[in-house]
Amino acid sequence: MAATTIETVKSALRAQQIETPSWAYGNSGTRFKVFAQEGIPRNAYEKVDDAALVHKLTGVAPSVALHIPWDKVDDYADLAAHAKNAGIRLGAINPNVFQEDDYRLGSVCNPDPAVRKKALAHLLECVDIMDATGSSILSLWFADGINYPGQDSLRARQDRLAEALSAAYDRLGADQRMLVEYKFFEPAFYATDIPDWGTSYAHCVTLGERAQVLVDTGHHAPGTNIEFIVAFLLRQGKLGGFHFNSRFYADDDLMVGAADPFQLFRIMHEIVQAGALEASANIAFMLDQCHNLEPKVPAMVRSIMNVQEATAKALLVDADALAAAQRDGDVLGANAVVMDAYNNDVRPLLAEVREEFGLDPDPIAAYRRTGHAERVREERRDGQAAGWGA
Amino acid sequence: MAATTIETVKSALRAQQIETPSWAYGNSGTRFKVFAQEGIPRNAYEKVDDAALVHKLTGVAPSVALHIPWDKVDDYADLAAHAKNAGIRLGAINPNVFQEDDYRLGSVCNPDPAVRKKALAHLLECVDIMDATGSSILSLWFADGINYPGQDSLRARQDRLAEALSAAYDRLGADQRMLVEYKFFEPAFYATDIPDWGTSYAHCVTLGERAQVLVDTGHHAPGTNIEFIVAFLLRQGKLGGFHFNSRFYADDDLMVGAADPFQLFRIMHEIVQAGALEASANIAFMLDQCHNLEPKVPAMVRSIMNVQEATAKALLVDADALAAAQRDGDVLGANAVVMDAYNNDVRPLLAEVREEFGLDPDPIAAYRRTGHAERVREERRDGQAAGWGA
Amino acid sequence: MAATTIETVKSALRAQQIETPSWAYGNSGTRFKVFAQEGIPRNAYEKVDDAALVHKLTGVAPSVALHIPWDKVDDYADLAAHAKNAGIRLGAINPNVFQEDDYRLGSVCNPDPAVRKKALAHLLECVDIMDATGSSILSLWFADGINYPGQDSLRARQDRLAEALSAAYDRLGADQRMLVEYKFFEPAFYATDIPDWGTSYAHCVTLGERAQVLVDTGHHAPGTNIEFIVAFLLRQGKLGGFHFNSRFYADDDLMVGAADPFQLFRIMHEIVQAGALEASANIAFMLDQCHNLEPKVPAMVRSIMNVQEATAKALLVDADALAAAQRDGDVLGANAVVMDAYNNDVRPLLAEVREEFGLDPDPIAAYRRTGHAERVREERRDGQAAGWGA
Amino acid sequence: MAATTIETVKSALRAQQIETPSWAYGNSGTRFKVFAQEGIPRNAYEKVDDAALVHKLTGVAPSVALHIPWDKVDDYADLAAHAKNAGIRLGAINPNVFQEDDYRLGSVCNPDPAVRKKALAHLLECVDIMDATGSSILSLWFADGINYPGQDSLRARQDRLAEALSAAYDRLGADQRMLVEYKFFEPAFYATDIPDWGTSYAHCVTLGERAQVLVDTGHHAPGTNIEFIVAFLLRQGKLGGFHFNSRFYADDDLMVGAADPFQLFRIMHEIVQAGALEASANIAFMLDQCHNLEPKVPAMVRSIMNVQEATAKALLVDADALAAAQRDGDVLGANAVVMDAYNNDVRPLLAEVREEFGLDPDPIAAYRRTGHAERVREERRDGQAAGWGA
Repeated sequence: MAATTIETVKSALRAQQIETPSWAYGNSGTRFKVFAQEGIPRNAYEKVDDAALVHKLTGVAPSVALHIPWDKVDDYADLAAHAKNAGIRLGAINPNVFQEDDYRLGSVCNPDPAVRKKALAHLLECVDIMDATGSSILSLWFADGINYPGQDSLRARQDRLAEALSAAYDRLGADQRMLVEYKFFEPAFYATDIPDWGTSYAHCVTLGERAQVLVDTGHHAPGTNIEFIVAFLLRQGKLGGFHFNSRFYADDDLMVGAADPFQLFRIMHEIVQAGALEASANIAFMLDQCHNLEPKVPAMVRSIMNVQEATAKALLVDADALAAAQRDGDVLGANAVVMDAYNNDVRPLLAEVREEFGLDPDPIAAYRRTGHAERVREERRDGQAAGWGA
Repeated sequence: MAATTIETVKSALRAQQIETPSWAYGNSGTRFKVFAQEGIPRNAYEKVDDAALVHKLTGVAPSVALHIPWDKVDDYADLAAHAKNAGIRLGAINPNVFQEDDYRLGSVCNPDPAVRKKALAHLLECVDIMDATGSSILSLWFADGINYPGQDSLRARQDRLAEALSAAYDRLGADQRMLVEYKFFEPAFYATDIPDWGTSYAHCVTLGERAQVLVDTGHHAPGTNIEFIVAFLLRQGKLGGFHFNSRFYADDDLMVGAADPFQLFRIMHEIVQAGALEASANIAFMLDQCHNLEPKVPAMVRSIMNVQEATAKALLVDADALAAAQRDGDVLGANAVVMDAYNNDVRPLLAEVREEFGLDPDPIAAYRRTGHAERVREERRDGQAAGWGA
Repeated sequence: MAATTIETVKSALRAQQIETPSWAYGNSGTRFKVFAQEGIPRNAYEKVDDAALVHKLTGVAPSVALHIPWDKVDDYADLAAHAKNAGIRLGAINPNVFQEDDYRLGSVCNPDPAVRKKALAHLLECVDIMDATGSSILSLWFADGINYPGQDSLRARQDRLAEALSAAYDRLGADQRMLVEYKFFEPAFYATDIPDWGTSYAHCVTLGERAQVLVDTGHHAPGTNIEFIVAFLLRQGKLGGFHFNSRFYADDDLMVGAADPFQLFRIMHEIVQAGALEASANIAFMLDQCHNLEPKVPAMVRSIMNVQEATAKALLVDADALAAAQRDGDVLGANAVVMDAYNNDVRPLLAEVREEFGLDPDPIAAYRRTGHAERVREERRDGQAAGWGA
Repeated sequence: MAATTIETVKSALRAQQIETPSWAYGNSGTRFKVFAQEGIPRNAYEKVDDAALVHKLTGVAPSVALHIPWDKVDDYADLAAHAKNAGIRLGAINPNVFQEDDYRLGSVCNPDPAVRKKALAHLLECVDIMDATGSSILSLWFADGINYPGQDSLRARQDRLAEALSAAYDRLGADQRMLVEYKFFEPAFYATDIPDWGTSYAHCVTLGERAQVLVDTGHHAPGTNIEFIVAFLLRQGKLGGFHFNSRFYADDDLMVGAADPFQLFRIMHEIVQAGALEASANIAFMLDQCHNLEPKVPAMVRSIMNVQEATAKALLVDADALAAAQRDGDVLGANAVVMDAYNNDVRPLLAEVREEFGLDPDPIAAYRRTGHAERVREERRDGQAAGWGA
């Protein structure tokens, strides 16, 4: 490949930014068991510290998403300053309207107006927090849905949803936007109130320009072609960003790229082809994972490396050759162009990118040398480890 | 139940209209084998005859959808007159842009502009046919898609699709509308150009009021909650109609109600709750099935009976009790209201409805007495039986 | 239908026994939230009380399954006596080898021999408990599996599994048997050590006659034909029993019959056709559900009624007419025989069965009249409500 | 990597043998359309020629599977001689008992004993053909199943299946074996008679040592972990071989490695770890694909290259490091060992292997230089192109 091309690829890789989620540094698990790990952060400050370490090792993870109230603090400006000192910034704000007893039958879609009011108040509070932290993204996921046919009116719930989204949208500042996530199922087991991209899209169109769809790669029906959705939303100007993770079955929340690295590459290919890797496209690349069995920080580092590798391969696709083969109806040839890019070993290229950042080319080895795991095991021995419930 | 309520239910059942598809009277099969049956229609006129018989037996199937060119005739007005004589009318017109060699890489999404032009010309020709037959629905399904990553540009194909849809839409008369069907997969095995309701919906919104989404009950990813889609599209004013059939796995095209009668009931429940059974709602209830193993006419009769039974049960839902239980957050109670309706045996009620039509209460037994099967076995012995290829 | 036939059907319905699970009376939820309910039992004795009430209301739920250590008591003979006094007996014993930190990487399949030893010791302890309670079934479900490719050797884990099963099998008494459950996924997200009936079956064949497969209706891949598995296992003499529940997506653990009542009927049809409803067939019909949103006792009552309704419909299938239509290759006729049975409203028939038991024909109404919910809300106000963790 | 290790890897790659299927050189399609290609073989001899070309280009495809009656010839010994002259041999014999009208309701499971007799006779005829061709594998796939609940007795069909399998098994010679394929669905849409590996396995165990399971990689429920099945069958000594292809949705029959190359790698990883790549393991690696859109011969070449690349990566897994990490419960470390192997670019290594065979390192480029496509377009212009029906 020509030197100039490689430089373009490397430049794009250096510019890429991937946000990590505060909650992935805390304990998580399944309904069967949360296996507690050692050295887990006990509060938002320590989660920010771990996120900052991930950025220090990779160079491309300069922000951390917050989950409220899991990351509730007295002074968000102080937390933002702490992040800045640590070398990162606070990212998307994720309201949590699913963990109080009031939300048994839903939050903004609840049949009880008092519960809806409470849920909306939390959404608005989160915009207040955005103002304090300087965050530009309100990242909305609702656990709302029903478990049994008839349990509630599907239609009435949409009306309630629209009402709450509209109220929250109106509260957004000029530089803030709302990303609306969809999910096939779980925790609702019959009908979810935003089950697919179409539902999210239709609401976002109604809301206006600052409402966009958030694609969580684990939130689809079996067999769904996610890159098609990505390409379509980009065409409609409604792709807001990603929650990256990977899955074999349902919303498994495994490390992105661990289950189907070729799918991740195909998603990044659509991004690259649409020019949406550019900062101007304003696509938020965020991780949303649960490291139930594996240690959190190195798992996060590995996940970021996986996204980088998929991105690098997508950048290596010979766009001219691809366009020519497509135009000629050369099925095997066009597929070969894509596969040729995928089959590259891009690890040496990424090692170079890291070295040019002044980083260790092997972030996992560098992580081990930090002694972080051993240190926090001691430092964080007392107190309550963070988790989904706190 | 109060007599007045029963009368309301029966009145709704008498008013229901279900369109049968001409192609279901011809031979069909899988890629492995088409098992030819005896007495199969040899042309559009004979398919109309069979459809008319189904209407004669059931009283609720007064129209038949056509598939062009499978039902190509020299004089469509003559075919319409034939239908009228037989007691029915011609319904939706379904263009076929997937069975010529030119369409190997797609029709309106083909990378070759000449093929796209040809496909569009066929769509426009079908509107001409609508003018001749008095049909009000252009029912669009595209087999377009790609089999391999990279084979063609997902985005460029959307642009081409939009262009063709727009041109066809502009050709529609004031009383005509366009229903845009989506399908999860098959015959495309990597990406389908309209894979889900969201894609169809977004295009329809762009096109305008006379473009609506067509829901084929067999065209979804595993586990998809179809009644949610129905409820949502009704809310958005974009549900145009159904292609009813049933499936256990993929697009199996089995008799509607044969695989999951409870799902069919839930779909009809959303229809009834939204008032969309009313003629004014303009929802087209159409069948789209393949009777690969079973005889066609009685299978169609059975399918219509299945839709009627699901509709009757949906009409029997105690809407007030349901609303009250939903308002109270009574999960078991609300579900019980729906299940109580479903658990009814509505066959006696439907027998009454048929008798009030002057029909045999048992359409299957009545079919046997017609001697139709024996008669057409003789009459249609010579010539080429109709099938998907002709 | 002839009076004698009806009497046979009713006799079979009176003889049917369905076991309820102690854990369904405690709190449960998803990884996102456990919504605590009021009046929840605080220990095994109170769970037995609730199970006894369910039996009192339905007449067909004379035993309750235990989960160890969730139902750990000092004196199992005393608990058995308590059950007997309450009108029921203790049923299957379910070891729990997934909720201790040691089991992070598995129990009997763990790479660490010390953990495997501990897990096996618990299995053996459960056989001791069976001896004390008079239970005849050791009901084995393992959460074992791995989340990432390469995490552990699939093959080595099978060897470890076989070793543990063999040791537990050898410990069983002459009147005891081992049911081996399989599950498609969750909590393991890449590979589960017993993911399908074939794996369970192969191990059971190796173990011997007293090892049989347990079919949990929620533990299959999307689209799986469960009644085929039931029919096949019956043919091989290896169906041990069921964990009934229902699902729309994954292991949703909803009330049996709530998601797909037709599927439940088809399963019971295979049971009836094989003569496996007879007590001599020794098939254990057990429920395994999570009532996350709905109140537990009435949900259990409803679930039992759903199984009864499916069974009644299956008993009403005209076996002679079915056999004749199948022999003749009459696809529509054979299907119609089955559908005719399914379309019956069997609620009046079951009301009669209950009255012949001396029970209220409407168990849900009877439950309300007991005032049980109000009473336990008071009685069980203090202390720790039972749940999955205790 | 040490030179000796590389030499071991290359040696294994040189020894690998992949069988191509005669039917993939003929036309194929979906139920919607078979797009005819130019230059398609018109008979078994010409299919053998194309298969021989694939071997000439890749060096690892020395045999071709036959499908009877699609490949029916007067003199099988002559066909075998033709193959030998062309540099390959005849491989597995695949009976076809699904394309005659008699098989509408099944072949060996048909309710009609006369049809069953006819189907069995064809199986036995195929063993005769094996004797004539020197083939050692009878590769059995049955399209048998039912479309509607009740259509036939699931259990009776198993009895009929067992009877036919037993009769065919008894006819096998000492050096012949029977591979029994399973398939989740299609063309049967309610119940398939051998729907999963467990059913095939149970029959094979009953039959004896020379009956083994055939894994077609496209024949599973969504989400199924195929490499688990492979590992389990290897443990049980019952894995007979593969029909490789790939899929995004159902039995799409795309080029192997095109949809999920990581899955193919994981399958080969289990093969390598179990030592089953050795010739002594007697695992048949066969392709079974439909090149509906793309040209057949280069698609086959590409497919073989994809299998080779997956195999090469699997051979590069550092088994010692993997075992150590697994033993230590190092989740990330063990996964990383596997991913490190997968992330290699093995194309240069395979180019070397080809050069050591005396082949062009780039088989696709070499194919183009042969002028084969142009030549057969002329030579095979007249007559009937081979397809599934002939």
